[in-house]
Amino acid sequence: MDDAAVYVLDDETAVIQTVDFFPPVVDDPWTFGAIAAANAMSDVYAMGGEVALALNIAAFPEDLPPDVVSAVFQGGADKVAEAGGVVAGGHTIIDAEPKYGMSVMGLAHPKHVVSKAGARPGDALVLTKALGTGFILTAAKNDVVQPGHLEAAVESMLRLNRHASHLAREAGAHALTDVTGFAVVGHALEMAERSGVQVVLRAGALPLLPGARDYARAGLDFGGLRRNREHFEPRVRIAEGVPDDLRRLLFDPQTSGGLLMAVEAALAAPLVERLRADSHAAAVIGAVREGEGLIVDA
Amino acid sequence: MDDAAVYVLDDETAVIQTVDFFPPVVDDPWTFGAIAAANAMSDVYAMGGEVALALNIAAFPEDLPPDVVSAVFQGGADKVAEAGGVVAGGHTIIDAEPKYGMSVMGLAHPKHVVSKAGARPGDALVLTKALGTGFILTAAKNDVVQPGHLEAAVESMLRLNRHASHLAREAGAHALTDVTGFAVVGHALEMAERSGVQVVLRAGALPLLPGARDYARAGLDFGGLRRNREHFEPRVRIAEGVPDDLRRLLFDPQTSGGLLMAVEAALAAPLVERLRADSHAAAVIGAVREGEGLIVDA
Repeated sequence: MDDAAVYVLDDETAVIQTVDFFPPVVDDPWTFGAIAAANAMSDVYAMGGEVALALNIAAFPEDLPPDVVSAVFQGGADKVAEAGGVVAGGHTIIDAEPKYGMSVMGLAHPKHVVSKAGARPGDALVLTKALGTGFILTAAKNDVVQPGHLEAAVESMLRLNRHASHLAREAGAHALTDVTGFAVVGHALEMAERSGVQVVLRAGALPLLPGARDYARAGLDFGGLRRNREHFEPRVRIAEGVPDDLRRLLFDPQTSGGLLMAVEAALAAPLVERLRADSHAAAVIGAVREGEGLIVDA
Repeated sequence: MDDAAVYVLDDETAVIQTVDFFPPVVDDPWTFGAIAAANAMSDVYAMGGEVALALNIAAFPEDLPPDVVSAVFQGGADKVAEAGGVVAGGHTIIDAEPKYGMSVMGLAHPKHVVSKAGARPGDALVLTKALGTGFILTAAKNDVVQPGHLEAAVESMLRLNRHASHLAREAGAHALTDVTGFAVVGHALEMAERSGVQVVLRAGALPLLPGARDYARAGLDFGGLRRNREHFEPRVRIAEGVPDDLRRLLFDPQTSGGLLMAVEAALAAPLVERLRADSHAAAVIGAVREGEGLIVDA
């Protein structure tokens, strides 16, 4: 078990299976469906695969207008089409609180599957999307978000990790994962532990969504953030010099976040350049060393 | 799209994808997990495939005791192991109302995939499990169920459709589906429409769970039954002679119901004999004719 389950059929084909769903993160139903789909498919890209087929997973209140339901499904279908896959049915139940997501089947050549366990001392760590969706979505829920900040976060969440995954494979990434609910520290820590190495993040190098620091500074608090701090803070050494708002952003759960990859250090800068040319908010955010655990420098 | 999505990889391999989940149908957490898994995997058997891999889909209240959550997952894992597959992770969210199910990946030879669209005039229809789980689960919810009736229903829901699927393939079944939420009429009607034939069910021949007629006679009413009647009653011709309780059982939504198959008439009796020898409550419940739609005789 990595970001997704991999079933090696034969020398040529590995089937990648993943499932993800959640309650609405934005008001617009098409946008919610599209973000949920991009987020669910991301696990396939985090394994180095391509999306083949997706099934809808949905729960809606009985009195939700049919055009709202259709818009959610349409958002999901549009994103799957953009990924080159097809939606083939799914399962919907009646539930007081709406939820939507997908079970996604991907394909890869078994030799091209990239796990999170391959990071090597000397590697550089590259992140392909800016952080802060948790704080910004919470600000939106509390009606204190600036529209431009929300728009930028939505644009980021809507973006598929497909092209970033292609570039990671071209750069021969040693380890690959995506940054989602467990925040950048949770996923970086998992990469360190699974790879048997130490990961050092540089807080000042983290790409951040516009407004993210403002909402982190404003002291917004929410369940996902609290759970990540409880879970990961005792296991991470964070340098004194890391400002409090950045420290909080380290634990910010991401929705449809970017890919985090370990690549040979010499290849990191050109890779980031190619990602930025494709308008990814990519950055080198740290390095891999001999040792264990996760350290965050200022 | 049939009971599940089928992705033909090459001449040798079709990947079958399906997803199903629902709120608890029984009090015991292991039993709930096992029934949900048997129900989710049934779609793979309804396509003539074998289960390879399953991912958990779960929603639990935050304060649910961990041992209850573990028991649900254990029930699911035990059933998947019985099916010869493996559970490889999944996705769990926090939700007020618990829900559990699975996304299942199955495999089949493309030539052995059986759809619901192949029924031929002259075929006999065989059902492999007794009907009545909707009424019995509702009686249990209302605390009016006899323990022996609930036990028999639970035993039936726990049973995998795997062996029944093997026997269907050996008998060269022309069409295959499983009877679940849309009740025997809904699924038989779909087989008729997709196959371009008329299906005639014999109400008196339907295998019924012990107690099912009592609860149907008692006038229990519930959402799934109401929705099936609204949806399908206008589209089915039911003979005057069909007693009212049997008429209601025609629309009873099934959880982890049996397989419904169209087989060459001469093969139906020996097939039912083999199924019964394996303690399936199987029966010939109707026939396929030229024409269209669904007729229910007494």
